[in-house]
Amino acid sequence: MVSSHDIIEVITTKRDAGTLSDSQIDWVVDAYTRGAVADEQMSALAMAILLNGMDRTEIARWTGAMIASGERMDFSSLSRRTSDKHSTGGVGDKITLPLAPLVAACGVAVPQLSGRGLGHTGGTLDKLESIPGWRASLSNAEMMAQLESVGAVICAAGDGLAPADKKLYALRDVTGTVEAIPLIASSIMSKKIAEGTGALVLDVKVGTGAFMKSVEKAQELARTMVALGTDAGVRTVALLTDMSTPLGLTAGNAVEVAESVEVLAGGGPADVVELTVALAREMLLAAGVDDVDPADRLADGSAMDVWRAMIAAQGGDPDAALPVAREQHVVAAPRSGVLTRLDAMAVGVAAWRLGAGRERKEDPVQAGAGVVWHARPGDRVEAGAPLFTLHTDTPERFERALAALEGGYDVGDGPHEPAPLVIDRIS
Amino acid sequence: MVSSHDIIEVITTKRDAGTLSDSQIDWVVDAYTRGAVADEQMSALAMAILLNGMDRTEIARWTGAMIASGERMDFSSLSRRTSDKHSTGGVGDKITLPLAPLVAACGVAVPQLSGRGLGHTGGTLDKLESIPGWRASLSNAEMMAQLESVGAVICAAGDGLAPADKKLYALRDVTGTVEAIPLIASSIMSKKIAEGTGALVLDVKVGTGAFMKSVEKAQELARTMVALGTDAGVRTVALLTDMSTPLGLTAGNAVEVAESVEVLAGGGPADVVELTVALAREMLLAAGVDDVDPADRLADGSAMDVWRAMIAAQGGDPDAALPVAREQHVVAAPRSGVLTRLDAMAVGVAAWRLGAGRERKEDPVQAGAGVVWHARPGDRVEAGAPLFTLHTDTPERFERALAALEGGYDVGDGPHEPAPLVIDRIS
Repeated sequence: MVSSHDIIEVITTKRDAGTLSDSQIDWVVDAYTRGAVADEQMSALAMAILLNGMDRTEIARWTGAMIASGERMDFSSLSRRTSDKHSTGGVGDKITLPLAPLVAACGVAVPQLSGRGLGHTGGTLDKLESIPGWRASLSNAEMMAQLESVGAVICAAGDGLAPADKKLYALRDVTGTVEAIPLIASSIMSKKIAEGTGALVLDVKVGTGAFMKSVEKAQELARTMVALGTDAGVRTVALLTDMSTPLGLTAGNAVEVAESVEVLAGGGPADVVELTVALAREMLLAAGVDDVDPADRLADGSAMDVWRAMIAAQGGDPDAALPVAREQHVVAAPRSGVLTRLDAMAVGVAAWRLGAGRERKEDPVQAGAGVVWHARPGDRVEAGAPLFTLHTDTPERFERALAALEGGYDVGDGPHEPAPLVIDRIS
Repeated sequence: MVSSHDIIEVITTKRDAGTLSDSQIDWVVDAYTRGAVADEQMSALAMAILLNGMDRTEIARWTGAMIASGERMDFSSLSRRTSDKHSTGGVGDKITLPLAPLVAACGVAVPQLSGRGLGHTGGTLDKLESIPGWRASLSNAEMMAQLESVGAVICAAGDGLAPADKKLYALRDVTGTVEAIPLIASSIMSKKIAEGTGALVLDVKVGTGAFMKSVEKAQELARTMVALGTDAGVRTVALLTDMSTPLGLTAGNAVEVAESVEVLAGGGPADVVELTVALAREMLLAAGVDDVDPADRLADGSAMDVWRAMIAAQGGDPDAALPVAREQHVVAAPRSGVLTRLDAMAVGVAAWRLGAGRERKEDPVQAGAGVVWHARPGDRVEAGAPLFTLHTDTPERFERALAALEGGYDVGDGPHEPAPLVIDRIS
């Protein structure tokens, strides 16, 4: 039971740069979820929060109110510890795919509730759904059974988890209020805390292809989320990682699954391997496990075994051929030299326009669509050799995808020293 | 035809403290009016405008877009010049009632399109509707005919005038975004410019009972509105007048009509007479008339003649007894001395709670409800003698009205010199 408030009083408090009381926050989140506060009132409040901020106490209460709007999961009956990872979203960010089975292969269970993509960053579920037969929806009982038997689950979050966040996120998306650090932090952390993981590693992306364009903003977001997790009893750590350059050599759905399988088979692009192993170490440490080196479990094939079991447990065929787009278009290197820049936003928008992502929530995605690049910054390229291959089922999309790529890369004389992948660690 | 824009682009431009382009403003006002921009999007934009402001060019364009959303009236075929007045809203502010006939009696026509009250400040139409038979709705043809024959009209603004403002005002009212100077200025001026008056005097209220609590904010609003009017070819001047103390001795509906009739009969409280004459002089000057003294036309009864004709032309009986509330409650002076403070907000909220105003647009008002006070600041009062008389048809309202009055006045030892009524003049 929460006290009753007047929505105008709550909005004007934040509009005038005041601090919302616990009771105001509990009331407004609850009233919005049950429809007693209208969308146009909540969006005005969200804009006031974006422009005037919230302090740590307000953000914690807001997060708690969103958790309280729905159910909480509980993995304490599992025989293993749990650890999860959340990325704030990047281009070519398929890390969850090799990471979840790798951590499970090291003895810690990974209950990963994922989302679908919106905009230029892809969604983990969209990628996995390119595997024939694989299904994203599991009941809570199926999820528990799979965590016990396989050790890793990547599935869709149920409607019961933080419904206030679901409603508020959809509203922010259409009202220009996505980029509010208090609201981003509480949105992510309410779902992860309600999910019931024991430990959590946050991969906070920073750079042109990320929501957070500056290291300072990314640090602020990371610190806010680590504090929220810690206060809620979840051992939480954040890595700030570069998202000026896309990860690996692929952005899309099936193309990213194929690259993830390469990593699990002991190959794959060095940056994807590096970030997968770094995040696995953090997830294990946060769960209190420091006697296993995840690099060994990639090398000995045990992570691949978990991957195959995880895909099969959710109806997928790990041996099935992945979908391939009907049309390809190759972009050749304009000159010989060294690739000195590859812009994550340009590649992300190109993949999105090819059909790998969606414009509206209800749009389907193309399993085979995406961008493959054949060199990473620092690599040598030869004039006329393929630099990008664009994939789509609908060739009329090539033109706008090519326009997105234009100006998104430089070939120079080199040498070029790539920027470090892990920028900071916040715990 | 306006160019198409993306609402997110418009919201984020203002959110990030940018300047909206002419084309963005034209598009968003038009798209909101026809429903292509949703309420939750416009309220987020309104909050961003409130917190980040608009420059003079943006405000002028926004006002122009609201005018363009509806029809414009034209009084150029009248045989007399026109001059109108707008008050930003005060407690006991019945000035329009004696003012319109007074200016008409001086030879200048007054086409006053008024509104109903919302919140603690009363509405002119609500007051006039306490006169038996009087009706607020006139067709444009009826309005023109009455302006020609009587010289003064006070009636409801039709739905065709600045419909964008109507929709936006209703939204701002429920989203905590009323107090944005650019939006207040464009709301008032779009209606007054569309109304077609040749000259306009703005009575910008400042003090505890007004929207503008500080002289600086009131000056900013006044300057913004004078610039908008002048740029649109309307001779515009603003007086800043005190609204820390309520005007006259009455706040309500019928009680304010009775006080107005006293002024027209050559009596009434000195402050109401002073402000009525001061505003009449400004309205005449703005219309280019400087050879008539409105004080003479109050004294010689010609303003009263116009009042009677104006009321009768709209179906009202100027000789009918005014409604009286069924219940009265007297508040006695707590001690003998001088009334040193009478707070406009306290009196306004008390009158509102007694039933003189409405909480929601669709609520009715009580014709007889209101507050009458028997002394003005500076007047001597005797312990136990009546200080306030509260009027209502519903005596269960007395308790909350009395609570509003509590702490709203001081009786001291005196002497007390009242603050000046007219604080500044901006042209």
